[in-house]
Parts: sequence; structure tokens; C-alpha cells
Amino acid sequence: MAGNSFGNIFKLTTFGESHGEAIGGVIDGCPSGIHIDLEAVQNEMDRRKPGQSDIVTQRKEPDVVKFLSGIFEGYTTGTSIGFIIQNANQKSKDYSHIKDSYRPSHADYTYDQKYGVRDYRGGGRSSARETACRVVAGAIVKQVLKDIKINAYVSSVGEIELQTPYQELDFSVAETNTVRCPDSAIAEEMITKIKEIRKEGDTIGGTITCVLQNVPIGLGEPVFDRLHAELGKAMLSINAVKGFEYGSGFSGTKMRGSEHNDLFNADGSTKTNYSGGIQGGISNGEDIYFKVAFKPVATIMQNQDTIDKEGNMTEMHGKGRHDPCVVPRAVPIVEAMAALVLMDYYLLNKMYA
Amino acid sequence: MAGNSFGNIFKLTTFGESHGEAIGGVIDGCPSGIHIDLEAVQNEMDRRKPGQSDIVTQRKEPDVVKFLSGIFEGYTTGTSIGFIIQNANQKSKDYSHIKDSYRPSHADYTYDQKYGVRDYRGGGRSSARETACRVVAGAIVKQVLKDIKINAYVSSVGEIELQTPYQELDFSVAETNTVRCPDSAIAEEMITKIKEIRKEGDTIGGTITCVLQNVPIGLGEPVFDRLHAELGKAMLSINAVKGFEYGSGFSGTKMRGSEHNDLFNADGSTKTNYSGGIQGGISNGEDIYFKVAFKPVATIMQNQDTIDKEGNMTEMHGKGRHDPCVVPRAVPIVEAMAALVLMDYYLLNKMYA
Amino acid sequence: MAGNSFGNIFKLTTFGESHGEAIGGVIDGCPSGIHIDLEAVQNEMDRRKPGQSDIVTQRKEPDVVKFLSGIFEGYTTGTSIGFIIQNANQKSKDYSHIKDSYRPSHADYTYDQKYGVRDYRGGGRSSARETACRVVAGAIVKQVLKDIKINAYVSSVGEIELQTPYQELDFSVAETNTVRCPDSAIAEEMITKIKEIRKEGDTIGGTITCVLQNVPIGLGEPVFDRLHAELGKAMLSINAVKGFEYGSGFSGTKMRGSEHNDLFNADGSTKTNYSGGIQGGISNGEDIYFKVAFKPVATIMQNQDTIDKEGNMTEMHGKGRHDPCVVPRAVPIVEAMAALVLMDYYLLNKMYA
Amino acid sequence: MAGNSFGNIFKLTTFGESHGEAIGGVIDGCPSGIHIDLEAVQNEMDRRKPGQSDIVTQRKEPDVVKFLSGIFEGYTTGTSIGFIIQNANQKSKDYSHIKDSYRPSHADYTYDQKYGVRDYRGGGRSSARETACRVVAGAIVKQVLKDIKINAYVSSVGEIELQTPYQELDFSVAETNTVRCPDSAIAEEMITKIKEIRKEGDTIGGTITCVLQNVPIGLGEPVFDRLHAELGKAMLSINAVKGFEYGSGFSGTKMRGSEHNDLFNADGSTKTNYSGGIQGGISNGEDIYFKVAFKPVATIMQNQDTIDKEGNMTEMHGKGRHDPCVVPRAVPIVEAMAALVLMDYYLLNKMYA
Repeated sequence: MAGNSFGNIFKLTTFGESHGEAIGGVIDGCPSGIHIDLEAVQNEMDRRKPGQSDIVTQRKEPDVVKFLSGIFEGYTTGTSIGFIIQNANQKSKDYSHIKDSYRPSHADYTYDQKYGVRDYRGGGRSSARETACRVVAGAIVKQVLKDIKINAYVSSVGEIELQTPYQELDFSVAETNTVRCPDSAIAEEMITKIKEIRKEGDTIGGTITCVLQNVPIGLGEPVFDRLHAELGKAMLSINAVKGFEYGSGFSGTKMRGSEHNDLFNADGSTKTNYSGGIQGGISNGEDIYFKVAFKPVATIMQNQDTIDKEGNMTEMHGKGRHDPCVVPRAVPIVEAMAALVLMDYYLLNKMYA
Repeated sequence: MAGNSFGNIFKLTTFGESHGEAIGGVIDGCPSGIHIDLEAVQNEMDRRKPGQSDIVTQRKEPDVVKFLSGIFEGYTTGTSIGFIIQNANQKSKDYSHIKDSYRPSHADYTYDQKYGVRDYRGGGRSSARETACRVVAGAIVKQVLKDIKINAYVSSVGEIELQTPYQELDFSVAETNTVRCPDSAIAEEMITKIKEIRKEGDTIGGTITCVLQNVPIGLGEPVFDRLHAELGKAMLSINAVKGFEYGSGFSGTKMRGSEHNDLFNADGSTKTNYSGGIQGGISNGEDIYFKVAFKPVATIMQNQDTIDKEGNMTEMHGKGRHDPCVVPRAVPIVEAMAALVLMDYYLLNKMYA
Repeated sequence: MAGNSFGNIFKLTTFGESHGEAIGGVIDGCPSGIHIDLEAVQNEMDRRKPGQSDIVTQRKEPDVVKFLSGIFEGYTTGTSIGFIIQNANQKSKDYSHIKDSYRPSHADYTYDQKYGVRDYRGGGRSSARETACRVVAGAIVKQVLKDIKINAYVSSVGEIELQTPYQELDFSVAETNTVRCPDSAIAEEMITKIKEIRKEGDTIGGTITCVLQNVPIGLGEPVFDRLHAELGKAMLSINAVKGFEYGSGFSGTKMRGSEHNDLFNADGSTKTNYSGGIQGGISNGEDIYFKVAFKPVATIMQNQDTIDKEGNMTEMHGKGRHDPCVVPRAVPIVEAMAALVLMDYYLLNKMYA
Repeated sequence: MAGNSFGNIFKLTTFGESHGEAIGGVIDGCPSGIHIDLEAVQNEMDRRKPGQSDIVTQRKEPDVVKFLSGIFEGYTTGTSIGFIIQNANQKSKDYSHIKDSYRPSHADYTYDQKYGVRDYRGGGRSSARETACRVVAGAIVKQVLKDIKINAYVSSVGEIELQTPYQELDFSVAETNTVRCPDSAIAEEMITKIKEIRKEGDTIGGTITCVLQNVPIGLGEPVFDRLHAELGKAMLSINAVKGFEYGSGFSGTKMRGSEHNDLFNADGSTKTNYSGGIQGGISNGEDIYFKVAFKPVATIMQNQDTIDKEGNMTEMHGKGRHDPCVVPRAVPIVEAMAALVLMDYYLLNKMYA
């Protein structure tokens, strides 16, 4: 209820501030008897970690996960899985510029208003650092739901957009470039753009597309807990996300029913897929695909006017090493959150099977 | 968990099929001592009800709410509020065309796959008729959170789009025309378009914009239960919704941080509001605004190829009286769901106050 | 959260005051495709209803359940099941004696303190009338979990106690007498006692024992949601309940480990069953048995000193027709709550299957 | 849902096996701005820890809590509080006797049946070691709800029973003897009994009484979430608990209404308190008191027949250092669980304030 848990049957609860001793979490409801490949988990962590390329923040955090329970002799036991990730960056730094002042478009002001207090070091709990815990849980799910294919990729950076339908893409190309776009030429443009933006001390937004394949028919609960509603919430819970659309999305609003309806083949599959793999909130066996909008990172290396706690105008200049564009590192986070939703609804659906 | 409840502290649980005897619900967690104006509740129902104008379905359902508990001598008592709405349309009709066949882009196929059985009369539980119960609960909330202003309106029908920023609109104009667009000239265009589409036996999509004003600072729970994430889920749980964006939304992905950041005034308010009234998942006192995408209604008055339960190809033709465009009647539903989220988070925030 | 729902996966949400128009509820999470025998449901209602014999309240309420959704052509559809029970006793009576005064050991005072208002007619929401809705849901469960045998019976009335171990009883005898004790001779004593107590305008407490047989191995979730913990909560949520013990219970505190330990047979069954069918919070396949303590009904037909809302001392005399002893009518309620717990944990356990 | 969380608004989620690297948990929903006295937390841990006296297990575990988040510069921040406790006893031992065999009246058999696998080292997740995490959370609550007095004490060991009503006891005496009984003479008897039992390689049960004073009026939610129902569940979730009664409890079943009813004083307090401080599930401002039954510890230092995984009969002899009687160390656990319930319901009740 206080917001640090996600999921119903398969539930992730997380804790940790960006500059505390460690972050971590508890995964409850993981089926027993699943072999866990720890290296595969770490690989997912590495896709998210800072310092992985020259277009992301240059902070160095190894992000090594340590599991403390729930896995015994390599297999899950059905009990809760506790884990922690030490913070490499917890050493005392100079936070005087953000201790008493509010960074524009950050959560400093709202946290102070809500709680009367905040851990001001590097954003504290509102830092995107917490998403590392989501990736841990997502990596576990990927090993449980082996048959489901979850692929996210960067589909735009600022105005540069990948227009190719996902069906014509080779998803594996995304991991061969630092921006995680499955079209090498457009990836190059994006990388150049990000470098240019960074040079100006600025940041830029972008979108991520995610495709879920081989999802069993029947996932999703009617009325309030439709599969796409939970996917939407999952995505909107990621830092910097401003929008979510699935299937035909916003462009579907301009279409006619006669055009938009997905006609059936004899086997129950559909000839088109404007529905995005979900009808009435329940997966229909077609590919599920959706797009997530990320705003430009709020921390910029430029002077900005702002206020301090007393309401005095002051000036702030971004410090430290930040991402000029969040989407390359957000790809594994989008996948992880999609995985959590699928896992939860997969288990839920077993109950009614 | 099985999807028929919404909210945590203020919780709505609903039941009912479109052609059963009645639909209804239970509102749990409503504060006590609130005077309930039953006429105001019915007014909200009337904004959603079928047959209200010549651009919506011509079915006649009075949608009269009967409260059965939780309100005593005009005031809420703090106990659960049960209510029912009789279905006027429950008389036995000819459903042979949908009993064994699957309407394209409806939930017939997925319900059958998930449950092995479905109430095929008029869509059953997957019919948008259930949203009437949401409007009941939303109408109660509007009487509890009197200071918060909740205004939704139609911002596009197909390609016809209202471009005016909401700040320049008079929301009350929306209720003066049948399409619920606060610009009379554009409303006229939209109405004409819908009539044209209907004449062709077709349907069209659209968008609804919603603005929440005077929301207290501090609503929203960090990490997974951000205020906009729950608003997104609420909207995506409405029938036919394909997308959600708040604040700068998808267009924000093309902006730079230096442009997108909302600089503070001395009183903590912001000079711009690309953040859409929410920072770090918590309301900051600025207007909250978001847009919701609705696909074209799936039932069209044209022949469509489809399949029956045995996988034989067959042909289907829409019967009955359906909406050519869903957005005019969805305006009160969007408002109701926004109200439910605000109520829940308002109560939740009291616990931490 | 506000207390009107029970269960996680299989969830019952109820509403209704004793003298409102109707009480009712919503059952969410019921598996689809279950044939529902409406007569069997009504039979359960009749076991709880007032006026059924000469040792219970002589109020007449037929307690006819009307299902409004979720059951189609005789089978559950997997959607939420809404139901209502009209209140026969809602006609305006004279409540002046309880409107402004607090009945001792009733909830009048605490409701007023908590909510600032209460429906004072006949106890309102705090009346045991709401338990009728629990019996409805329990009756549905009994039709889903056909293989599990759920038998409750009266094991004591005041000092009169049935000492025979449940293994030596014929449960069916309980339904052949009005007090629901499976030993006819002791039943006779109990009935005589209750009549005597009623003649004095007084009331008396008692206990109910419940035995669950053929429960599958593996129900129960470790640590906080142990099967017996949820059974305990379920029972303690019934009006007038003051205690719960399972297996060896309070008498087990006087035993030694060497005596209390249940040794295994080769097939995993145990030679004794002090554990009460649950080890580590998880069912082990042995009989689950527990005992529930009910206090004497608070409404007595004698003068009692009490206070009014302003804190003035006043005198109160019970009016209306009340139970001199609650246990005969509580037997089906205990069974219903046990059924709800088993159903919820049965579904939850399918996650691990 | 999978059982490792407790509470709704104030929620504790725990993880950890007795012989894994560490146990720990996450506290979500703790109000912000509370000064946390870490020494006071550790004092509570020390009341529960092994090796604290000569009548408990002689294992040595320092049980030092390390907080990882949610507390900043000595104050809670409103974000989730993560903590871990290293296991001192994790070194590899000889578990061959329990790896493939099932200890009678332990959870070995049921875990294996439910999960197909278990961490057999020292009971794994089913070990009472997990209760250390409950004490951490309870110790935090005691610092939030400073005005509420929570006192538990041992009221019986086997047949030796403290009969004195709690009103005549000086609770502080309980902490002056190793068995935690507030009557020194009876404490001496209990200690002698426990030593005698231990010498025989056996174990014995007992009861704990808990008294909650200065609880605000109004805590508890009607119908299913009555305050005593949640207290009951909380207690029954503790290892080895077989029963719970509050107020008059099981002895109340033998009383008459005229005797049992608590008559009011003019200020709303009551002349007697058979209700145990709760009426209609809601606290009435009187003392809340209840009793909890603990069975004898299952591990005994005697030979017992049992079975192995294949169903072969085998013999088992308790190894290691175990408690001959669990109640002395369970006193702080009972207090902690009571604290968690009060905290959760306290926050929930703020909704109505």
C-alpha cells in the first residue's frame, strides 16, 4: 500500500536509497524447484548498470546481486527470496547544493512536502537506482517463464524514430549497439544525437517498444485488472515515464472499426493485430506489443533557477555523472517489469485453470 | 485479485452482466458522515446512460441506482455501501449470432478460452455496461472530495482534434453539446463526423482529456504506486482504451531537459507544467492532466468474416443499437475512475500525515 | 481494508444492515464451470435462519438468496457473483430505546466513537445478520470442493459439555436435533438448559467444534499466512466469538513433547493427531479440527443500567426476539467460514502445482 | 499472498532460512519523522535471542540488526526500511539425520509435500528463527506508538499456572527472572520445572498473556477485520501456537449474559471488562488482554520412530541445542506481533479521523 511492492501472487518488495549502504528486495511467491542461473541474472544487471558505454552515465557501480534466501543448492524452494546489492557510490560527497534546494522536475520538493524529510543524497529513494531491484526480479522470472520471449528496444531518441514494424526487426541487433536500437543505421544516428546533446550539457527523451511473444492465451483478469492495465501501471511506475500505449495505441483513435477489427483465422489467431495481443483484457495468443514514453532526464549540466526550502530563489547546476538519455539503460527495466506482470498473471491464471 | 475490485483503502467491487437481472457493486472504505445527494449521483448516471442523444446508442436504459446499505438518513455511516442497477434490457433476445461465434476484436474468444464458458448475451461481463457501476462510485467520491475539480472532455474524434490547451477552455461548454467537446465549433464537426460514420455502419475512435485541479500536494506513493501509474491503470481498465499519457506525454520524448524542466516559483508552484502535476509519482499541487486513447467500437453494422466455436468460418453482422463512437459517453467514466484514484490516494495519504 | 472483504483469491465482499432494505455480497474468484445447486444453497441458509426452532429467536426471516450475476444457465462463469437477500424485518419499529443509548457489550458505543454515526436499527452493520452472506458464499464453496467434508457441531452449552472425541461421533446426528449436538442425550440436556435460561430472560455461551476431512496436503502458506492462522481469523471474525484453538489447543500447553509429537506411519499419515492436521502452517492430510468459543448473547430480557450519548445513566430492557444461545444457529456460519478459508488456500496452492 | 508479509498499511515482509547467510525484511508504511533508538531495538532482540539464560537453547547468536534504508540521520523517512540479521550459525554442520527423514510434528514433511524441495538445514524457513525479524519490526512500532503500553508475560508452564489477574501484577517483575513470569515465586517453580524437563530430554508447553493498555478507542474494522480477529491471526502465525482467546475467552462460554455484560460508567468506560477491550471488533478504550497457547517444542533429546522420504521407518534423535520450553523467548515475539497489529489498525483508523 505504501508503494514499495509490486504484484499480487508473485510479489516484489524493494528497499533502498541511492546512496545508502545497499538496496535490495524480497521476491515472494516464486514457484519452487526452478533452477536459477546466477550468471544470467548478473547479465541482466549488466545491461542496466551505469558506466556500460560512452552514451550513459560514467558512474561505476558493479551492481552485484547477492541472494540471501529462497534458493538452495541452485533451486528455488518456494520461500521468499531476499537479495541485496551493495551501493558502491555511498561515500560521503558534497550534497550541499541539493540538501536545501529543490532540483526542478525532480521529486525533491514533493518528497519534502509529503514526508517532511528526505534522504537528499543523490535522490535517495526517488533515484532510478531502485530499478536495479526490478531487474533482479525480472531476471528470475525470465528463468521461470522460459517459453515466453520478452524483447524491448529503443524505438526513438528525440525526433529520431525507428519506423520499421517490429515484425521486420531482428531483436538481437539491439544488443549489438550501445543505444539498444535493432536497426544499426538508426542506432548510429541516435548515438550521435545523444553525444551531441550531452556535449551541450542537455538531455533528451525517447521511447522504448516492447514485444512479448508466446504468451499463453488467457492471462489477464476482467474489468479492473486487465492485462494491459497492469502492464501500463508497471511501465508508468518506472522513473521518467510519461505515457504508455499498446496495440494500435493513440494512432488507433483515428481508425474506423471496419479497419481496426482483427479478423479471425480458423485456428483462433487473427489476420491483423491492432488489438496488441489482448482482447477484453485477456491475452489471445497473438504478440503483445506496447510503447513507453520517457521524458528527458531532469538533471542537466546547465545553470537553472530554482528555490530553496525557505522559498528563496537560488541557482543550481547539475553535478556528478548523469545519463544524457535514459532509454538505453531503461530497456532491461521495461523487460523486467513486463516479466513481473506476466509472472503474476500466469500464476493467477493457474488458479482458475 | 480476480479483477472485479478497484482501489486499496477506498475500494469498489462490482458484479453484473449486461443482460442479467441487475448489475451492482459494493463501495468499501467510504468515510462516514458524508451527506449524499442522490440526485447528483443520478445526474452522473445520466451523463453515461444510453439513448441520451442522437450520436450514441439508441438503447433505452434508465440506469437508476438503488442504494441498499451504508447510507442512513442521508449520510454515509462508514460501513460498506451496496447498490444495484436493474437491467432494463434483460429480456430474452435473439443471441444466436453470437452464442457460438466470436465477434472480431471483442472478448468473446478470450473469455471462452479462459473460462470455458461465457454469458454470451450482449457481451456479458465484458460489456461496457459494467462501467455504470464505476460512475456510481465516482459520483460518491465527487461528494466527498468537494474541493477537487475533475473535468474530462472529448479532445478528438478520429482526425478531428481540439488543439487548444486546456487552460484556455471553458470546461462547462462540453456539457452543452452531445459530443462533450468544450469548443462548440469543433464539437459540431465531431458530431457531423460521427453521424456520417454511423450512416456507413462503421465506428470511429477518439481521445478524452482529463484535468484534475486543486489536488492536494502529497498524493501518490513512491516507487510502484505512483499517482500517475494508478491513474494510468484506472484509465486502461476502461473498455476500448489503448493508451494513456500525462503531462508532456509522448510529445515530451522529443524535448530536451532544458526545455522540459518545470522551474519553480518562490511558493513552490512551477512556471511550466510539463510534469503534469506529478513529480516522482507524487502530486505537487499543479493541475494534473492526462489524455486517454479509445479505439473504434468493435461492433459495426457491416458484414464481417469470423469463426465459430468449432473453428468454422462464418459471417457476422452487427445487431442491436450500438455507439458509433464511444468517447461522448466515456467522459463521465474517465472522471469517475480519476475520482476513485484520487479518493484512494487521499485516504492513503492521511495515514502518513 | 475497511473490513468488509474476506479472502485473497476467492474473495467475499459483503454489505448490509440488519434493518436496511437488503443485505448481500459479491463473490470474486470463483472457478468457472461449476454447477450450482440453488436448493443446496438455500438449505444452508435455512440452517442459519431465525425462527427455525423453539430454542432460537422467533423472528421470521425467510432469507431467500437471489443471485444476480456470475451464474449462467446453472454454471459459474468465472465472473463475480453478486447476490442479495431482502430483509423481511425492515419495517419501521420503535428503536427509541437504542437510538441514543448504548446497549452493554454491544458495538453501539464503539461504532459511534469510530464513525460519529450509526444505523441504530437492530444493530445495523454490527448485527449478526450479516453472517447470512457468509453462509451463501460457504454454500457455493461446498459445491466446488465437493471432496472435502466440513462438519461443525455444538460441543458445549454453558457447563454442559460433549466430551466424546469427534472420531467416535456420527456427525449426521447433529442435524436431527435443534441444538445441533451429535449426541442426542446431551443435546436434550442442552435444549433444556437453553429453555431454562430463556425463561429467566438470560442468555448463555457455548462452543462449536469443527472437523475438516479429506483436505488435500499442502494447503497453507508459511510464516504469516499459516492455514490455522487464517482459520483462526475467520472464526474470530464471527460475532460473539472469544476464542479459537486447534488440535491439542490449550490443553496441549500442559503436555510434554514426547507425548504430544505425532509419530509417522510409513505412508506419511500420523499415529496421533495432536497437530490437528496442520504442521508448520500447512495441511498434512490428517483431519483438521478446532474449537470456537462463543460468549453469551449480550441482549438479555432484563433491566440493565447503561448510558446515553450524553453520558447520562439510564436503564435499558431488551426488546424484540433474540437468541438465548447463539451456538445452534452459528454451526453453519462456522462451516461457511471454514469453507471460505479452504477455498482460498486451495486456489492459492494451485500456484505450486 | 505467499505468506511472507504481514499487515496492510504498515507491512512487514520477511525472508530467510535459519542456516542461510542472513535473515531480514522490509518494513513498508512506517510514518516519517520518527526518531529511531537503535539501542532500544537491539534490547528487544536480546530478549528473544538464544543463549540468554540457562533455561533456553544454548546456541549463541548475537542477532545484530543492520538497517539498510528508510532511516536517515536517525529519523524514518517514510520510505521502506530494509534490514538484515546475519546468521551466526550458518556453518556447515551435519544435517544427515534430517536431510532425508522427517522430524515428527515439524514442518519437514509438509514442506516437502508442498514444494517438492526444502532447505533442510535446521528447519530452514520453518524455523522459529524468522521471528527475529518480527521483533525488529515490533521494536520500531513501539517507538512510533509510544503511548500504548504492550506487556506480555508467561502465565503458565505445563501445569504451573499464574492465577493472579493481570491487574494485580507488576509487569516489570517479568523481566527480572529468566522465565518472564511477573510473580517471582511462581517463576521459580516454572524455572525448576523447565530444568527438570530438559534433564529428561523432553520439552513442555505453556501460555503467554498479553495486555495492551492506552489503546485509542476506534481501532478495528467491522465484519471481517475485527481487531481481535487480526490479533488472533497474528498470534496463531507464531511457531508452536495452538490457541488464542481474548477477554473472557473460553471461560466466557460458561457464563450468562447477565453476568458477562460489561456495564458502562458515565464516561463510557466499563465496570467490568469481560469484553477484553474490544466490542464489535473495535477497541473501546479498556485494556485489551488475551492469552496464547504454545505446544511443547517438537525437538526432543530422545529417540523417536519416524520415516524417511521413501517411507521407510527409521529412528531419529534430536541434535543440537534446543529450547525445552518456548514461552520465555516467545514473550517479545507476542509483544511484537501485537505491536504490528496495533500499528496497522492505528494507521487505518486515521482514515476516519
